[in-house]
This record gives sequence, C-alpha cells and structure tokens, in this order.
Amino acid sequence: MAASTASHLSPPRFYVRPRSPHPPLRRSRFSPVRAAKLEAVLSIGTHLIPHPRKAASGGEDAFFANSDAGGVFAIADGVSGWAEKNVNPALFSRELMRNSSNFLNDEEVNGDPQILLMKAQAATSSIGSATVIIAVLEKTGTLKIASVGDCGLKVIRKGQVMFSISPQEHYFDCPYQISSEAVGQTYQDALVCSVNLMDGDMIVSGSDGLFDNIFDQEIISIISESSGVDEAAKALAELARKHSVDVTFDSPYSMEARSKQDQLAHWCTNFITVGGKMDDITVVVAQVKTVAIPEDEGGDVEELKGNEQGIAVAVASAEQNEE
Amino acid sequence: MAASTASHLSPPRFYVRPRSPHPPLRRSRFSPVRAAKLEAVLSIGTHLIPHPRKAASGGEDAFFANSDAGGVFAIADGVSGWAEKNVNPALFSRELMRNSSNFLNDEEVNGDPQILLMKAQAATSSIGSATVIIAVLEKTGTLKIASVGDCGLKVIRKGQVMFSISPQEHYFDCPYQISSEAVGQTYQDALVCSVNLMDGDMIVSGSDGLFDNIFDQEIISIISESSGVDEAAKALAELARKHSVDVTFDSPYSMEARSKQDQLAHWCTNFITVGGKMDDITVVVAQVKTVAIPEDEGGDVEELKGNEQGIAVAVASAEQNEE
Repeated sequence: MAASTASHLSPPRFYVRPRSPHPPLRRSRFSPVRAAKLEAVLSIGTHLIPHPRKAASGGEDAFFANSDAGGVFAIADGVSGWAEKNVNPALFSRELMRNSSNFLNDEEVNGDPQILLMKAQAATSSIGSATVIIAVLEKTGTLKIASVGDCGLKVIRKGQVMFSISPQEHYFDCPYQISSEAVGQTYQDALVCSVNLMDGDMIVSGSDGLFDNIFDQEIISIISESSGVDEAAKALAELARKHSVDVTFDSPYSMEARSKQDQLAHWCTNFITVGGKMDDITVVVAQVKTVAIPEDEGGDVEELKGNEQGIAVAVASAEQNEE
Repeated sequence: MAASTASHLSPPRFYVRPRSPHPPLRRSRFSPVRAAKLEAVLSIGTHLIPHPRKAASGGEDAFFANSDAGGVFAIADGVSGWAEKNVNPALFSRELMRNSSNFLNDEEVNGDPQILLMKAQAATSSIGSATVIIAVLEKTGTLKIASVGDCGLKVIRKGQVMFSISPQEHYFDCPYQISSEAVGQTYQDALVCSVNLMDGDMIVSGSDGLFDNIFDQEIISIISESSGVDEAAKALAELARKHSVDVTFDSPYSMEARSKQDQLAHWCTNFITVGGKMDDITVVVAQVKTVAIPEDEGGDVEELKGNEQGIAVAVASAEQNEE
C-alpha cells in the first residue's frame, strides 16, 4: 500500500517538453569550449568586505586574480585564532597570495595549482595559517583546482549549480589549513580536482564568509540578475555581509552548527545556532568566454567575444573596497 | 551589539590538537598515489536491488565494473516514463552499459569517460533514455568522471565527504538523460570532472535510488563499519531499500520535494513530501589501493597490497542479487 501510494505520487522522470513558461535551456546555447579553434578565458570580478571589527586593518582574507593563461584566481583566509598568540593573522594569508602570484609563471608550476600551492607555502616566512583555494583555467576549458580547508567554489550552468567542492575540516568550524607550523596541512592534503567548463559557465568562489552566509538559490538569483562579473561579485558580497550581521537570519552556518551539536559540545557550549556569521567576505565571480583562434595561425587571439574586462589584478586584500 | 554577540560566540577556527577522544586523522596515513613506483587500482563492490514491483523483470538500472586500467565502473538508470509508451525502459540502459563495456579498450576512447559515453550512445539501437555515470581511474590516481543526470558519486576521505558531483535536472525529478530521441541530452551535455585520489579513499556511486534514500552521514557510518567493498555496497543498498519503503522516513528526496514545491506545482499537486522513494537501487563502492611497480621494470605489477578482490565484472543488471 505504501509502495503503491508512493509510486502513484511519484512524478514522471521522463523528459517531455515542459508545460512551464520557463523551459529548460537547451545545450545549443552553450558550445563546449573544447571545440577546435576556440580557447577559453575567464572574465573575473572580485569583491572583499572585511569583518566589521577588522575594517581598519583590512581583515585577514587576501586574494589574487590574473588573466594570464586563460585565467587564474586564488583566495586565502587567514585563521583568526593566531591573534590569541599576538600574531597578525593577515600576514600569512597575504604572503601566501603574494607568493602564489609570483610563482604563477614558474616552469615547474606549469599551470598546476597544487604545485603552485606547494611553492607558495614553501616560500612563506610569516607565522600563521590559512585556508586557501587556487583555480587555474586551461585553454581547453578545464578548470584545475587545489583547495585546503573551507574556501568554496561552485560552477553555475543553465541556472543550476552543476559542480561544487566540499570543505575539509578537522571538526566543525576548524578547517584544514596551510600553516607555518608542522601541525598544519600542506599541498599534499589539498583536494585536487578539475571540471570541464563551457562557454557561459559562471564560477563563484569565496572564503567561508561568503558560503556561511548565503544559500545556493540566492547565488543563482544574483548571478542571473547581474549584468557583469564585477556587479555580481559586489552583490554577492553585500548580501552575505547583510546576512552575516543579521542575528535572526537562519544562515547555512547556523543550520550546520545545529546539525553538528555533538561535535561542538566538547569545546563550546555557547555555539551559534541562529543568525549569520560575521567574518571577512571575499568573492570571486568568473565567467567563461571563448576566444576564436585563426585557423592558419599558431595561437594568437583573433577576436575576444564578450570578454568585457581583461583582468590583471595584483595581490589584493581589503583596502580596495571596504564599505 | 549583534555583531559583538555573534563574534563572542564564534568558535576558534585555529587548529589545535583536539581534546576529543577521536583526533583527526593525519595525512601520514595516506600516501598520494602519484608517488613514483606506485599505481592506483580500484577494489570494487556492487549491489543492485530492483524496485519492489519490478523485481521479476530485474528493474531498469544497469551497471558494469571492470578492473582494466586501474578500474572502471558505470551505472545507467533507465527512465521509467517510457513504459507509458509501451517501451521497456530497461532495454536502453542495459544496451548503454553493454556498449560502454565493449568500447572500453577502444583506441579513440583512451580512458576518456566522455568519449566512451559518446561511442556507447552512438551504438545504441534501443528506444529509451537513461541517466548515466561513467568513472575511469587512471594509474596516476586521477578519477575521471562523465555524468548525465542524477546518478551520484561521492569520495570519502578520513571520514568525510571530500568530493561529490551535483545532479543535473531540467526541473525537480526530471534529470538530464541520454536518449534515443533528439529531445534528450548527449555526451556533450555531460558534467565532466576529475578528482585526484589517495590510497584508502572510498568512492560511493549509485543511481538516484541510493542518494534519494540515504544521507551522507549514513553513508559515512556504513563505510567505516564495513569490512570490505562488497559488504559496504550491500549494506548501503539495503539501508536505502529499507528507507525507500518507509512512508514515515524523512528522506533526502522528500526534503528536496518540499523545498521545490514551486517547481512541482505545475505538473503535480500530489507530490511526495514525506517518506522514502521507491526505486531501483544500484550501488558501487570502490576503494583506492596502490600497487608497487618494480623500479627496473616497465610497468608490471610486482605486488598487490590489500586489493582483496580482483574485479572483472561484466555488464550486469538486477538478476544477480535480488532480495
């Protein structure tokens, strides 16, 4: 009886043209960027809003974005606990991003984000630790990712999240972290993955200050309503900021905290179970575009379609756009 | 004030040795399989339980698993709506898996799951459609994945889901599907991604009948408690089956249905908002192992460490292990 009822109520999974006024987009709108004579590039927008009480110092997040070789971006979130040891948590994350930018064209790195992370960490001299994500787009359209901790990255295609990476943590709210100390993680602990992108795909990446305070459906809505990557990055950061200071907002962070009360109990009895989570908020929004290569040339770009802004952003932290 | 309160309650994100009796596992327990002289292989277990009312016909899921070239597995879920057109939905999914197995060593395929899918679909003659996932492990430890629709795949490392793929759907419960008809998707619509695996990583893949009826924490528990991949696959399938016929179980499927009532309204007013979802349930569990290659040889396997079962499973559907 139960089975019959459940089955009767099950909707058809068979694909017929929908009666909805919003039919699903067809694949013909998106050409795989692997097609001959096309190369993939990223149009990148960024926005960083520091934790309200860290505005004067610029916060502890850092990032860089660069249009070289298709497009590269990285985010590091300095672990704030170092302040208890009288260490400025921003120093390590900023140095890690500076090093990542410096080693970008290193021969040994050769477009591999995990090797880039290895070299960037090895070159740090600051004390501290940070979560970090590095993403490199190959000309073929493959986005290569190395991530340690809980910086996030999602790919939105045809109005849905079609790829996202999972955070790594020791226990709730204690993420894996690249560290100056032996107790931390290294590039070898990174989640290393890749995803083949298509023309028009949107990438949304950020520190946990973004993803702790905003839901996927909000991200999709903002992406669909924004006219460009800069506008989208700013709108995402501002909505996350708004939620982060709203003690009544049932945020992704507070929902997860409630679901992990058993993990929390041993070190904190006053955990957040409702409200946003105040934090530094870094957002990178990148759109995949294809550029046409002349058939009789070796690789020079003939035409740049819709790449509304060539990005060559240096290492940055919060000084650029604090509210 | 709100900000201050929230901040005060925020737990430290700084990693110190935990006071928990269950300290986080250290990376030294896992060697990257990219190390010289080591090659990655999969130990694979499978289990399929058909929909209770389709037991006699074996259901509409099909799969194959093969130990060639490290390890390959694939799952296809025949779309049941074809029965309304007097077409047996199992024919297409079974043919797709048979073709995938046949083309596995095709030179053009060369270990690329998306090309394998292209050739397998092109060779079908049956009418129908199916969701499908194909995963191929390279000797370097990179798992290459092509997926169309809502078959799932998760990688579990150190007791947490560290990678998972997102389902693609036109609207709720209407997944992307490889089809004999022009209205369906092709290999070009596939989510194509890869993830670098480590020795000991566990892969859990399945048709939506698994992931609609079981939560991540249940998967992690079963994986940690099982003595091998066969036992884990069977236990996962049986728990999903138990939940699928439990009209009181608040399943992932019913929770998602509630969250997407706006999408459901236009074609069904009696959608499931509580209970499991009866379906064919296919489970593949694979463990990553490393094999040592002699330093002075070109690639012959010298030693197989802990690969408790060499798998060379042909195309299979449900006849093998119906309850």
